[in-house]
Amino acid sequence: MSQETVRIEQQRQEQELKVLGKPVIRVDGLEKVSGRAVYAYDMELPRMLHGKICRSRVAHAEILAIRKERALKVPGVQAVLTGADVSDGLRGRGLLDTPILAHGRVRYVGEPIAAVAAETPEAAEEAVDLIEVDYRELPAVFDPEEALESNPKVVVHPDIGKYKRLSAQIYKSVSDPTRPNITNYFKVRRGNVEEAFKQADLIIENRFETHMVQHAHIEPIAALARYEPDGSYTLWTSGQNTYRTRKELSDALKVPEVKIRVIALRHVGGGFGNKGAGHIEPIVASLAEKTGRPVKIALTREEVFTATSVRHPSVTYIKDAVRNDGTILGRQIKLIYNGGAYSLSGNVAVGNSIHGITSVYRLPNLKADIYRVYTNQVQGGAFRGFGAPQIYFAIESQMDIIAERLGIDPIELRRKNLLHDGEKTAIGHRITNNTIDECITKVVESVRSRPLPKQEGAWRYGTGFAISKEQCDVSFPSMAYVRLKEDGSVQIWTAATDPGEGIHTVLSQIAAEEMQVPMHKVSMILSDTELTPVGTGASGSRQTSQMGMAVKLACEDLKRKMIGAAARRLGVREDTLTFRDGRIYVRDQNDMCIEYAEIFSPGPMGGAYVPEVGSITGSAFWLPKTGEIDPQTGQCSTDRAVAYYTPVAQAARVAVNVETGAIKVIEFIGAIDVGKALNPLNVIGQNEGSISMGLNGAMNEEMVLVNGRVLNPDLKDYKLQSIMDYFPIKSIILENHNPDGPYGARGCGEAPINPVVPAFANAICDAIGIRFKELPITPEKVLLALKKQLKNS
Amino acid sequence: MSQETVRIEQQRQEQELKVLGKPVIRVDGLEKVSGRAVYAYDMELPRMLHGKICRSRVAHAEILAIRKERALKVPGVQAVLTGADVSDGLRGRGLLDTPILAHGRVRYVGEPIAAVAAETPEAAEEAVDLIEVDYRELPAVFDPEEALESNPKVVVHPDIGKYKRLSAQIYKSVSDPTRPNITNYFKVRRGNVEEAFKQADLIIENRFETHMVQHAHIEPIAALARYEPDGSYTLWTSGQNTYRTRKELSDALKVPEVKIRVIALRHVGGGFGNKGAGHIEPIVASLAEKTGRPVKIALTREEVFTATSVRHPSVTYIKDAVRNDGTILGRQIKLIYNGGAYSLSGNVAVGNSIHGITSVYRLPNLKADIYRVYTNQVQGGAFRGFGAPQIYFAIESQMDIIAERLGIDPIELRRKNLLHDGEKTAIGHRITNNTIDECITKVVESVRSRPLPKQEGAWRYGTGFAISKEQCDVSFPSMAYVRLKEDGSVQIWTAATDPGEGIHTVLSQIAAEEMQVPMHKVSMILSDTELTPVGTGASGSRQTSQMGMAVKLACEDLKRKMIGAAARRLGVREDTLTFRDGRIYVRDQNDMCIEYAEIFSPGPMGGAYVPEVGSITGSAFWLPKTGEIDPQTGQCSTDRAVAYYTPVAQAARVAVNVETGAIKVIEFIGAIDVGKALNPLNVIGQNEGSISMGLNGAMNEEMVLVNGRVLNPDLKDYKLQSIMDYFPIKSIILENHNPDGPYGARGCGEAPINPVVPAFANAICDAIGIRFKELPITPEKVLLALKKQLKNS
Repeated sequence: MSQETVRIEQQRQEQELKVLGKPVIRVDGLEKVSGRAVYAYDMELPRMLHGKICRSRVAHAEILAIRKERALKVPGVQAVLTGADVSDGLRGRGLLDTPILAHGRVRYVGEPIAAVAAETPEAAEEAVDLIEVDYRELPAVFDPEEALESNPKVVVHPDIGKYKRLSAQIYKSVSDPTRPNITNYFKVRRGNVEEAFKQADLIIENRFETHMVQHAHIEPIAALARYEPDGSYTLWTSGQNTYRTRKELSDALKVPEVKIRVIALRHVGGGFGNKGAGHIEPIVASLAEKTGRPVKIALTREEVFTATSVRHPSVTYIKDAVRNDGTILGRQIKLIYNGGAYSLSGNVAVGNSIHGITSVYRLPNLKADIYRVYTNQVQGGAFRGFGAPQIYFAIESQMDIIAERLGIDPIELRRKNLLHDGEKTAIGHRITNNTIDECITKVVESVRSRPLPKQEGAWRYGTGFAISKEQCDVSFPSMAYVRLKEDGSVQIWTAATDPGEGIHTVLSQIAAEEMQVPMHKVSMILSDTELTPVGTGASGSRQTSQMGMAVKLACEDLKRKMIGAAARRLGVREDTLTFRDGRIYVRDQNDMCIEYAEIFSPGPMGGAYVPEVGSITGSAFWLPKTGEIDPQTGQCSTDRAVAYYTPVAQAARVAVNVETGAIKVIEFIGAIDVGKALNPLNVIGQNEGSISMGLNGAMNEEMVLVNGRVLNPDLKDYKLQSIMDYFPIKSIILENHNPDGPYGARGCGEAPINPVVPAFANAICDAIGIRFKELPITPEKVLLALKKQLKNS
Repeated sequence: MSQETVRIEQQRQEQELKVLGKPVIRVDGLEKVSGRAVYAYDMELPRMLHGKICRSRVAHAEILAIRKERALKVPGVQAVLTGADVSDGLRGRGLLDTPILAHGRVRYVGEPIAAVAAETPEAAEEAVDLIEVDYRELPAVFDPEEALESNPKVVVHPDIGKYKRLSAQIYKSVSDPTRPNITNYFKVRRGNVEEAFKQADLIIENRFETHMVQHAHIEPIAALARYEPDGSYTLWTSGQNTYRTRKELSDALKVPEVKIRVIALRHVGGGFGNKGAGHIEPIVASLAEKTGRPVKIALTREEVFTATSVRHPSVTYIKDAVRNDGTILGRQIKLIYNGGAYSLSGNVAVGNSIHGITSVYRLPNLKADIYRVYTNQVQGGAFRGFGAPQIYFAIESQMDIIAERLGIDPIELRRKNLLHDGEKTAIGHRITNNTIDECITKVVESVRSRPLPKQEGAWRYGTGFAISKEQCDVSFPSMAYVRLKEDGSVQIWTAATDPGEGIHTVLSQIAAEEMQVPMHKVSMILSDTELTPVGTGASGSRQTSQMGMAVKLACEDLKRKMIGAAARRLGVREDTLTFRDGRIYVRDQNDMCIEYAEIFSPGPMGGAYVPEVGSITGSAFWLPKTGEIDPQTGQCSTDRAVAYYTPVAQAARVAVNVETGAIKVIEFIGAIDVGKALNPLNVIGQNEGSISMGLNGAMNEEMVLVNGRVLNPDLKDYKLQSIMDYFPIKSIILENHNPDGPYGARGCGEAPINPVVPAFANAICDAIGIRFKELPITPEKVLLALKKQLKNS
């Protein structure tokens, strides 16, 4: 692990920090490394049944009949449900289009048609195999551009006009009845892009395409449900988001949210967005209701690949109007996300991409049209970076293409067009605390300090740059309670979930710091819709900065209340009391203080503490106020479209073997301004994790589909990075105070994945002069391109 | 079910009640009757091991050696622990004397010596059988009077002087080094009893003895523990009291309470006091720590009988100084509880009995000495009525004996000596809201309205009366949070546990009533030391009146806060707002109101509610202030020794067959003043349950011990009442408002068991002229006594 920590703006406060900014080890680390951690996948309930799902074997078909008689005869089978047996409620985050089990039609290979609950997983599996489905196959569409056409040959959801859309500001779509496969459409109109093309010295137009990759979180997906005779449901899930899952369940099951309790596990084995949607929760809940017994569904790896969600494949057309000095006068973008057969969490990608398009560069004229379309394959959903890596591949490749065409240094070109503090983006957000230029400087310095040869034998060396900004998700408020217990320890109550990023540790650090108690006196109450206050779990790089702010504010509220209680206990005025060194002191009297636990009186029952007024709870609510986006123009109603952006600059340094096409990553340098690294170990972990994941996705990973069927739905044929693929990553962590985060912190879980792929592609191009506009970039493709290059030269 | 509801003091408020006072069915009833309820006994944890306990086969012995080698070789065994392998911490509620596993000495048959954790219960059982223990047997003591002697032959705990005593006011004991088997001693000195005997017309002295009975709760006892690598423990138990169990665990394991989390199950299959102590929790926690795996121990019925706790057997000497007109001038009592080998929860019995001695009758001169002593048998512990049924058997039998000797009607005699409002008891408590006279009147009216014949063939008929008062336990505070959720529903957060009495229903009714929401919008958060505020679970007939008061006050606090939030939301002044019909209205404007959920703003995420300031929580704390009891005189430092007493009057009507000794209960009439029957079904349930349990204990149940070994530790040989033993019970529920309870309610879970046995014994005596002073009263004993009576006549 290599790192360089740069502190530009030293905060006075920071020098006094005792827990924050320190490489505190994870509060849940011991459980994990000792193998004692219990995941949803491990969980069991008394009298539990096992659920399995019968899935579509065709990409698009009408279901003529489902015969479940043979399945029902398998010993141990307690229920076989089809679409006709369950609620017909539809669910989704923006567009409610996803049924619990298929209703009359299947739209992708893997779609749930029926579900079985049985005494053993084996019996359930056997029954699934005995369910007979008669299909009338329909023509299918896989190509997003074909799906986008007016009056398309294949309409994936003829009923789309009847689907409910939730009124979320950022991804309001404009419906076009002639193009029924559009799930979402978003446009930005700024200036006059046609005029810019007229005035341009150079017009550069390119098409970029990204491929389908899967999250491949190490723990697959599991959920358990219990149904109570009073009509209520309790679910334990491997999910990233209890409150959103509850909402989905409420829509699907058509029962009020109050009747549903969703509980997160302390340990979640990765999620990266895929576990933000409830892929199986309504099915397992329906089985529990039907059987009156608890039911567990644990998906196989194959099911995770074929029937949960993937990163949206995409096509981007980008056309720029440029002056000879490198100034971008205008940009036109048409971006099409291949949404697959359903939406669930996918719609948000469309809204998120506008920040990738607008937040980095000055674009006086912009015309952007972003579509998400239905096709007959596994759906696109939330995936680290969510909508942004696709557009950054296009933009940051395009920037290098422009630089090359104009003979300008690519760094120079980028700097020329950067937005600066005080300027407004193309959607009207006013830039503040912008430090992307410093990130670039750090990366360039690092690259220049260790020059590479241009070539060595068959190896050609190249360096590529790319930059990005990632917005913090403020679509949902953050709330926290912090409770002082009768023994002076502190509890944190939030909806935070920890699919591996370490948020339980960071929030504990914040509370320990604020309350001046050691880490072991802080505990986390796990996200549970019955217990913890409303909030979003792991999504949108928001937990540290948003949930962290709520925890900090709740601690402040708690301290105010503690001062009140301590004053009553000591019989002094509140304004004579002050916090110091984890105690409450009477001001200017160093010998007169009380410990937190002493606020509570000892009770008459020997040894048991009896609080004076109950335990004391501080609470807080945090939601930065942002403007509304006009769906007709993409313009923000105020000059604040997001809470803040996290800037990233990266350089990839590669070697390409011109004889074999082999690619070696010599080094990857990633600079990120996290505002304040509350836990430096975690920040480096996120930076390295994002870079590894992004780069492996561009080099090795690819879901191969034929007629909508995934051919490599396992970790043997779908190649994840292993320790053998190790390449050195240099993390440069900048800490410019962000006034909108706790102790100045910014979110950093997703930001570093955005420029990885274009930096890599730019490096390849720098090495061998070949521009790849489609992913992945594999040795085979390199070799093929080299041969073509040779032939053309 | 027969009932007669008498309302003497109609509260204005009561007429408006919508949910309270109504026979609302249990919130957990459907789960129970449909067989879906999960008890601790049913619970499973992933990777769980099963624990079993190796127990002493002798009543008193030194342990010379424990050989566990053969046990360790049983396949699947993961740990075998002895006293040397676990913490040597001692635990107990008043006196800390109970080890986790025996240390060098065993003191009763059934005492835990070693514990095994294995992959299956069968493997654990096999290993337990292979543990070899070498004993050096010691003389044992079983008779409590022998144990009480000065310089006794057998000293059960030579180290008693070193044991820690918790400073609970009511059962401070006075140590006497010559009588080392006394675990607790309590005395009352009022007036001059010797002088009273000099002035008496009549002195009546008797000895009464009660036997050993077991709680026989239908669910045995189970606990599960998980140990985390950070040194913390989580326990799920069938217990009645999470916070007390946590304290016991902390003492036993010698770890701070903050490291221990105790979670109650929603369903507990009866407890009656036995589940108030943690019989197995420290063992299961130690096994979890040792193995690093979750462990479950589920006791067998035999273990529950032989190695948990029982109702204290007792001996009472009662000597009264009486005038010819029936006035009691003075009373002398010596009461000895047979405490068995340990104390755990048992010590409290001693303190409780003083209320039985002093609260009903005027005793100008009283000398009472109450002892609890160690013997070599299973310990006496908390059991419905806890210390009181034993003393009421003596007192209420004695009152009939006096009446007979003086030729006064027994009701008349009792009435003559009753304490009235304003008078002070022999411990100095000033009587208020005393309605025992009305209870007597109701019972007498009922009896007189249906006269019985004196005899029919071989059957002789008799009626017996008895009365009592039960104090409300205020040794621990009650705390509650009530939270308004974003959908307008209400949650109750308390440490209340529901081993069958229906407290979850009653607290839900209180919150529904106070918040004016329907019952289905109220939910209970289960007792959990991490989540719910400090409080005592089911013990001392306290939950309805004490926890109920806390819930009511927390609702009031919540409503104050809701008014504040609603005023901000509506933009009006707080004092213009008022609650009406479950909404918040602007005063005098019938068309301007908001629903509770509307206090919270709808959020930007479609459909998900976003609270304005988080959910809103009201909190409250309730602990009636009572005086300190002087251990030298038994006198209370204020005129309030308890929160209130619950008065009961009962009549038993029996038929005895003089040829066979058979006893038939013709009818049992029980009047109780519950202040306000918040849930009439539950109140009648408690009255009928207490009467059934008390009467069956006097007629059929008896634990038979030989040399400390229980000969009938199962439900085949220990005869519980079944539907075949049904007898009619007439419940007369009086409702005289109790200002110290919510809506005037008094506790009623234990009170009706106190006079059952003497009413029964008095009825037998009325029928056949034979006075039984020892329990149980069986046909065999009756026949024997009838023969003796015949011989003597």
